[in-house]
Amino acid sequence: MREESLAGGHGGAARLGELIPVALGAMAAGVAERGGPVPAGGPAAVAAALTAAGGGTGTLPRTGVGAERALAELSHLLAAGSADPADPACAAHLHCPPLAVSVAADVVASALNPSMDSWDQAPVASELERAFTTGIARLCYPDAPGADAVVTSGGTESNLLGLLLAREAAPGVPVRPVCGANAHHSVARAAWLLGLPAPVVVPCEDDRVLPAALAGALAAVDGPAVVVATAGTTNTGAIDPLPEIAALCRRAGARLHVDAAYGGMALCGPELRSRLAGLDQADSVALDMHKFGWQPVAAGLLAARETGDLAALSVRAEYLNADDDTEAGLPDLLGRSIRTSRRPDAFRMAVTLRALGTDGIGALVERCCATASDVAALVAEHPGLRLLAPPALSTVVFRPVAADELPEPDEFVAGVRRTLLEAGTGVIGRAALPTGPDGAPRLWLKLTLLHPHATVEDYRALLEKVVATADAERAAAPGSPVVS
Amino acid sequence: MREESLAGGHGGAARLGELIPVALGAMAAGVAERGGPVPAGGPAAVAAALTAAGGGTGTLPRTGVGAERALAELSHLLAAGSADPADPACAAHLHCPPLAVSVAADVVASALNPSMDSWDQAPVASELERAFTTGIARLCYPDAPGADAVVTSGGTESNLLGLLLAREAAPGVPVRPVCGANAHHSVARAAWLLGLPAPVVVPCEDDRVLPAALAGALAAVDGPAVVVATAGTTNTGAIDPLPEIAALCRRAGARLHVDAAYGGMALCGPELRSRLAGLDQADSVALDMHKFGWQPVAAGLLAARETGDLAALSVRAEYLNADDDTEAGLPDLLGRSIRTSRRPDAFRMAVTLRALGTDGIGALVERCCATASDVAALVAEHPGLRLLAPPALSTVVFRPVAADELPEPDEFVAGVRRTLLEAGTGVIGRAALPTGPDGAPRLWLKLTLLHPHATVEDYRALLEKVVATADAERAAAPGSPVVS
Repeated sequence: MREESLAGGHGGAARLGELIPVALGAMAAGVAERGGPVPAGGPAAVAAALTAAGGGTGTLPRTGVGAERALAELSHLLAAGSADPADPACAAHLHCPPLAVSVAADVVASALNPSMDSWDQAPVASELERAFTTGIARLCYPDAPGADAVVTSGGTESNLLGLLLAREAAPGVPVRPVCGANAHHSVARAAWLLGLPAPVVVPCEDDRVLPAALAGALAAVDGPAVVVATAGTTNTGAIDPLPEIAALCRRAGARLHVDAAYGGMALCGPELRSRLAGLDQADSVALDMHKFGWQPVAAGLLAARETGDLAALSVRAEYLNADDDTEAGLPDLLGRSIRTSRRPDAFRMAVTLRALGTDGIGALVERCCATASDVAALVAEHPGLRLLAPPALSTVVFRPVAADELPEPDEFVAGVRRTLLEAGTGVIGRAALPTGPDGAPRLWLKLTLLHPHATVEDYRALLEKVVATADAERAAAPGSPVVS
Repeated sequence: MREESLAGGHGGAARLGELIPVALGAMAAGVAERGGPVPAGGPAAVAAALTAAGGGTGTLPRTGVGAERALAELSHLLAAGSADPADPACAAHLHCPPLAVSVAADVVASALNPSMDSWDQAPVASELERAFTTGIARLCYPDAPGADAVVTSGGTESNLLGLLLAREAAPGVPVRPVCGANAHHSVARAAWLLGLPAPVVVPCEDDRVLPAALAGALAAVDGPAVVVATAGTTNTGAIDPLPEIAALCRRAGARLHVDAAYGGMALCGPELRSRLAGLDQADSVALDMHKFGWQPVAAGLLAARETGDLAALSVRAEYLNADDDTEAGLPDLLGRSIRTSRRPDAFRMAVTLRALGTDGIGALVERCCATASDVAALVAEHPGLRLLAPPALSTVVFRPVAADELPEPDEFVAGVRRTLLEAGTGVIGRAALPTGPDGAPRLWLKLTLLHPHATVEDYRALLEKVVATADAERAAAPGSPVVS
């Protein structure tokens, strides 16, 4: 019976008070066992660890081992085998270390399990979500009192909604997505999912859309268009020239969706906010609090200027939002998402905002960006490294200069990254950017700094590992010059 | 600095060990304050409680109050204002009370925050997911050793994937969805999202697709078709005649997707399993472990007979799954979902399965279904209630007989439900079913029994509340007979 205990109701908190310490104890032991940012040995070692823990059979167990043992064993395994963004050397992706306050709030959300598809499954959770999403919408659209936002599973779903709203705004006519070469892959994927034409891709310079090229592209589109601009690209953190893009869209009668999944929460930072000027001219904005916002995945948002702009999401299901229930005053939640059952992710976002305030979040964002500037300066001064450009947000893009002397520099760069990953000493990102001859793609390394407490010294150590690895691989490469 | 503490890394477990008890203490106090299954007073009272807690302003706070205070205040608010499925009187929807073991496991997943879009963000989490989803796929397709499954945000996304796979299997030709009148609303919504024609809707009898009608519908479709059958309808839990439907699809060359979001986990029950005969003939199957499976939302799955059947989800993004990384042995995760960043929901599902085994889950499913049969018997014997039909799974559909004498019986039924909800004494579902003259829709009440420990006595008390409320409203209704 014990492993069947429920998390909610009158005994739930007590049972969680027994089980969670078991899980946390095993997690702490697993973190200690791992030591570094990621387990050493690559996929083979990780798969072997899973097998050793009895978890890799591909057959569900018929009989159980009980809650305590399952939690202890698998929590240890997960912690030992994770790439932990709370380690500064885990800096590849827009993959943040969550704040403890958000994780603690999530326990209550999980235990009570409000489902956001009808009021009678989520009475106060839905009211809280409304208040929170209104706050987010007003952050994006400070001059639009009717601004509104919905919660999504991340930037990918938010971008899909941005294109969906554009599609539905022009019924019967296929709307054409137009985006920069710097846009996230989810834009093209959303077009595919929605049955829209593939996006027209506009050239970029320094990872930013070229307004003149966008103007040309819009002139060539026959019929309605939706432009997707980016405020914080995945590769470099670059922010598109939003005011110019918004002006072009107005002139062409095109809709504008801004993918601010990375950069959006910089609106909370007094120094950084001005970089997002023009964001409020978008028809819709994607944000992700699982990037800057320090939430566990998922914490996506889509904001729009008016509640009515989201009307395309409306849907009726007699058992969830019958007309007579809505008329009787039960709020209709179903049109707030393309999902049905939906976790109250807004709860932990709201708790986090109440704990830190927008000032607190903004300070963390600015700290990460300031650290990135300092790290970029380190790179620029380092004889073994080359910096791509000063960071626009918190992404530092660089290459070991050792690559330059080799016939296959990109393979070398990719190899250095994999060596560090396999060794378990560094999790570093990669970015293909058009910096080769005639704009050919060249591979760069990147650090995406989302750790709010990491210092430039942490990253100095990581950069030295990159240089040492590059030097070692350069020395071992066939045809390498003999070191005298 | 304290409210900025991270959940992962070396100090994470310790900080969570301080904060989670704060949240759980507040949750327990909120549960006690609520008393019943849902807060009394309806939307107005809940909104007032939020305002009183300072949370309803629609403006994000600039300054924070710290982690402890934010957690204590909002966790109390959420618990006091939730519809808690751990209370047996909260029985409206496919909205389960989560198991404590799953919630505890989720803490570790949240803290370490693996993101399932690349191996270097989720080394062991991705291996665990693979093992778990393979196990689920083999549960659905016991004779297909290459069966595979992916994790989704729920039945709605799983149904969308089912239609998407059908769309991609017939490139360039619009595939026509065909489903029963009993199908979930997400089927039509998925067709809309994907740019497919609206589904052809096939008549049902007793909430099950009529095979003869399906045969006719398939004969009338010009071009490829995908049939969506349901194993556990939302209204009554009915299971479509899967073997007959599969045979018709084979004959017509149509694909078959089965929405087993409700019924799928009955595969774990030795008594119930046979009701799902024919499921393994589907091209794809939707399951939800946030229904039978006792997971917090979300815990959706989509299974297919072969890994290659999921190939339409493949996508390349240089920074996540570059060809050279994949060739070097880094598993490609991006094609396992239409999302990008993705929470490791498989972790808590796998921990739950290890704790209870499929036998343990199956026993819980069968207990709920047995209780539903007993409750149905109570209803059938009760002079104030009418039973629709014996339950197919764990849904009991009924009406107060008092409705029969009234000119607007559906309004009366809907009103009884809302009165119980507003009073905070019962959360009961509704279902419109074609039981009126000439198949006109009539409104019924339903109990969806997903509480594994609730007994028939719990539901007897709830049914008496329904009868008492109906009698009181009947007596108060205009033109009601004077009680002598």
